[in-house]
Amino acid sequence: MNKRKLVVIGGDAAGMTAASKVRREQAEREIIVFERGNHTSYSACGMPYYIGGQVESEEDLIARKPEVFRQKQNIDVRIRHEVLDIDIENKRVKVKNLDEEKESWESWDDLLIATGASPIVPKMENIDANGVFALSTLQSGIDVFNFIEENKPAKAVIVGGGYIGVEMAEAFLDLSMDVTLIDMAPQLMATLDKDMADLILEYMIEQQVKVFLEEKLVKFEKNADGSVKSVITDKQTIPADIVILGMGVKPNSELASRAGIKLGAKDAIQVNKRLETSVPNIWAAGDCAESFHLVTQKQVHIALGTVANKHGLVAGINISGGSAEFPGVLGTAITKFQELEISRTGLSEKEAKDLGVDYETETITSVTPAGYYPGSGKISVKIVVNKQSQRILGGQIVGFKGAAKRIDTVATAITAGFTVQQLMDLDLAYAPPFSTVWDPVQIVARRIR
Amino acid sequence: MNKRKLVVIGGDAAGMTAASKVRREQAEREIIVFERGNHTSYSACGMPYYIGGQVESEEDLIARKPEVFRQKQNIDVRIRHEVLDIDIENKRVKVKNLDEEKESWESWDDLLIATGASPIVPKMENIDANGVFALSTLQSGIDVFNFIEENKPAKAVIVGGGYIGVEMAEAFLDLSMDVTLIDMAPQLMATLDKDMADLILEYMIEQQVKVFLEEKLVKFEKNADGSVKSVITDKQTIPADIVILGMGVKPNSELASRAGIKLGAKDAIQVNKRLETSVPNIWAAGDCAESFHLVTQKQVHIALGTVANKHGLVAGINISGGSAEFPGVLGTAITKFQELEISRTGLSEKEAKDLGVDYETETITSVTPAGYYPGSGKISVKIVVNKQSQRILGGQIVGFKGAAKRIDTVATAITAGFTVQQLMDLDLAYAPPFSTVWDPVQIVARRIR
Repeated sequence: MNKRKLVVIGGDAAGMTAASKVRREQAEREIIVFERGNHTSYSACGMPYYIGGQVESEEDLIARKPEVFRQKQNIDVRIRHEVLDIDIENKRVKVKNLDEEKESWESWDDLLIATGASPIVPKMENIDANGVFALSTLQSGIDVFNFIEENKPAKAVIVGGGYIGVEMAEAFLDLSMDVTLIDMAPQLMATLDKDMADLILEYMIEQQVKVFLEEKLVKFEKNADGSVKSVITDKQTIPADIVILGMGVKPNSELASRAGIKLGAKDAIQVNKRLETSVPNIWAAGDCAESFHLVTQKQVHIALGTVANKHGLVAGINISGGSAEFPGVLGTAITKFQELEISRTGLSEKEAKDLGVDYETETITSVTPAGYYPGSGKISVKIVVNKQSQRILGGQIVGFKGAAKRIDTVATAITAGFTVQQLMDLDLAYAPPFSTVWDPVQIVARRIR
Repeated sequence: MNKRKLVVIGGDAAGMTAASKVRREQAEREIIVFERGNHTSYSACGMPYYIGGQVESEEDLIARKPEVFRQKQNIDVRIRHEVLDIDIENKRVKVKNLDEEKESWESWDDLLIATGASPIVPKMENIDANGVFALSTLQSGIDVFNFIEENKPAKAVIVGGGYIGVEMAEAFLDLSMDVTLIDMAPQLMATLDKDMADLILEYMIEQQVKVFLEEKLVKFEKNADGSVKSVITDKQTIPADIVILGMGVKPNSELASRAGIKLGAKDAIQVNKRLETSVPNIWAAGDCAESFHLVTQKQVHIALGTVANKHGLVAGINISGGSAEFPGVLGTAITKFQELEISRTGLSEKEAKDLGVDYETETITSVTPAGYYPGSGKISVKIVVNKQSQRILGGQIVGFKGAAKRIDTVATAITAGFTVQQLMDLDLAYAPPFSTVWDPVQIVARRIR
């Protein structure tokens, strides 16, 4: 009988996946999860579609509620409980019950830190204006939804052209708002190269999003009632009834750091492949922790749901006495803006250059499905290849009609260490409603050979 | 200067890909292609969509016309020319000009046989009735199209529930016909396992296709004017205004065999990985030739456009003095019936059993995209795994909304020799409009572990 008490800080993907895994393996253990928010195990990625009205209810975004964890899995989930301090020496955490404003200590034998990441919110004038939001927790999504219901904003400004920015632009257009997007970079979607990001830019402009690049957020103006009036950049004043900040995220690692746990890449909590931190019996998983990158073979910080779920499972296996290693990430990601699908994996050209890799790239434009099939649309595929070994380092796809999920083939090929020849040689599925006879990911490989 | 004269028999995917490759590499060579039909380089796979009215014109299915090959690539393509005999000793072929009914001899230094495959047409009473068709060449597709235009058939019977059968059932429904499909097997789609094929059956019945399994074609009845009146099976008489035979294909290897060239798997022309036949300086490629199977490590006969294109390229490289090997097939294939997508790769359970492999299987049903996202539909994924090594041997997918192209991930994983753990560990793309956070192909891998 393993009676070691497990405390988990954070009740979303990584934390609850780990807790559930430990419960499945060790029925006898005490497991307590502290979650400072109101919800557990929800799809943060679904929030733009909920705000835009594609998803009916916020309930739909919740995979499992605290009471279900309690009743069905005997996991003691305590929402609205914030962990204020980790006491390593005495193996305990100081917890604040946010509803009762009461603090207490809770001991642990094993501790999992799964505190997630938070949106970057710059300190600037009137950032506290009503109607300025950053998306993070499900509650923040509900807040945006309710604000729109109550205030019927007509003019939306989005700061930052990453995943959240692009997805919220779609959501606001769905709600018939006038949408402006600003980004200080010379391109949208910093995880893609500029040539590929420009395809997205072109389409967003066509779809009536006003996009201003190389434009820096300076401050906000408020109306007399405290609501946001405008966004002021280094170049102009943009009237705004609602603002979304999509300026990236930072790992919630401050609690760990204060306790003496080492931080690593981009201030994420340093972990090894077993997701052990620098302190014995303390694990970290999800958006607050580092991940091993399969191409660079270095620890990186990538805050994605796919990674958090895998982290949670690996941590759960190890905490329950098993042995598992995190398999590594490629930073594979996908999104869409209306009909335009966008995906990437591995190294971008920019990243390859920054790492000093001797690389070459190739980009093709083809169609999917077959050109003569109704609804066929453009697909652009870029790959980055190690010049010496001809191994694939990364890929990016922008296109229509099932274009972007093809990135999985590229991700699998990278993981396998395939060369462009091996990618080209794959026996991939072809029929006119789905593809050209050489799949676009093979066409680009064939071109570079 | 390489002055060796290349003769190619057959002007579709394999033949023209090879001829084009040789021309790119060796500008000086004489290249003659004999094609007994009217067309070169067309998409046979597109014919059901042309017949069903999704593709506007038969011209859309033609990738490149004979005159373009002649003018732009200096390839002497002669359509309506049938090769009657291969004279190995004297390195020449006997050719019949079908329009002028004239025979002549043409010499070669290198010969590529790319004669394709033909639909199986059983010898039986009234098989020659007007309105009974088998799809093979583009001309056969045009004939079906014209027959429908002229005769406005109301009742369609399809014999055989494979790719052609399923695709033609969709086409005939699109044309508002009453559609009956019979197959002598106890399931549709023999390249899938029965459990997966039954999902297709269920959906086709829902969509008003009358399906009769384990029912054998016996003969046809004719009207007085010679048109088909009904299809007679071992169980019933089915009224029919048009009949499509989708009973599989056989390689067009008779010409080669008669000349003394060895045949192999399923009477396809025996080739090695360089696509050399048993006779020096004679190559075979495409639907008439064998292919190396990556899982069974045996020569097989798989008649697919993807394979024919790869064959053509490999043969072309070798004929022009380069060195290439055919990378192998998994029998990856995809199709759809209306909204239901269907795909497979590698070994089915049936095939694994027949081969005496110690295997296990797992099947899951999930959703794609995320369950809360509008339009989410069911997806079923089955994998076949080597019980000892846990390596993936095969996969099958039946589902909606981008379900089936995921088979490419499975095909890539099989090619890489991945275990289920490695499939599960892949960093695949997730966002709510595209997938669940664990992709369905990972869910099935996770289940079997």
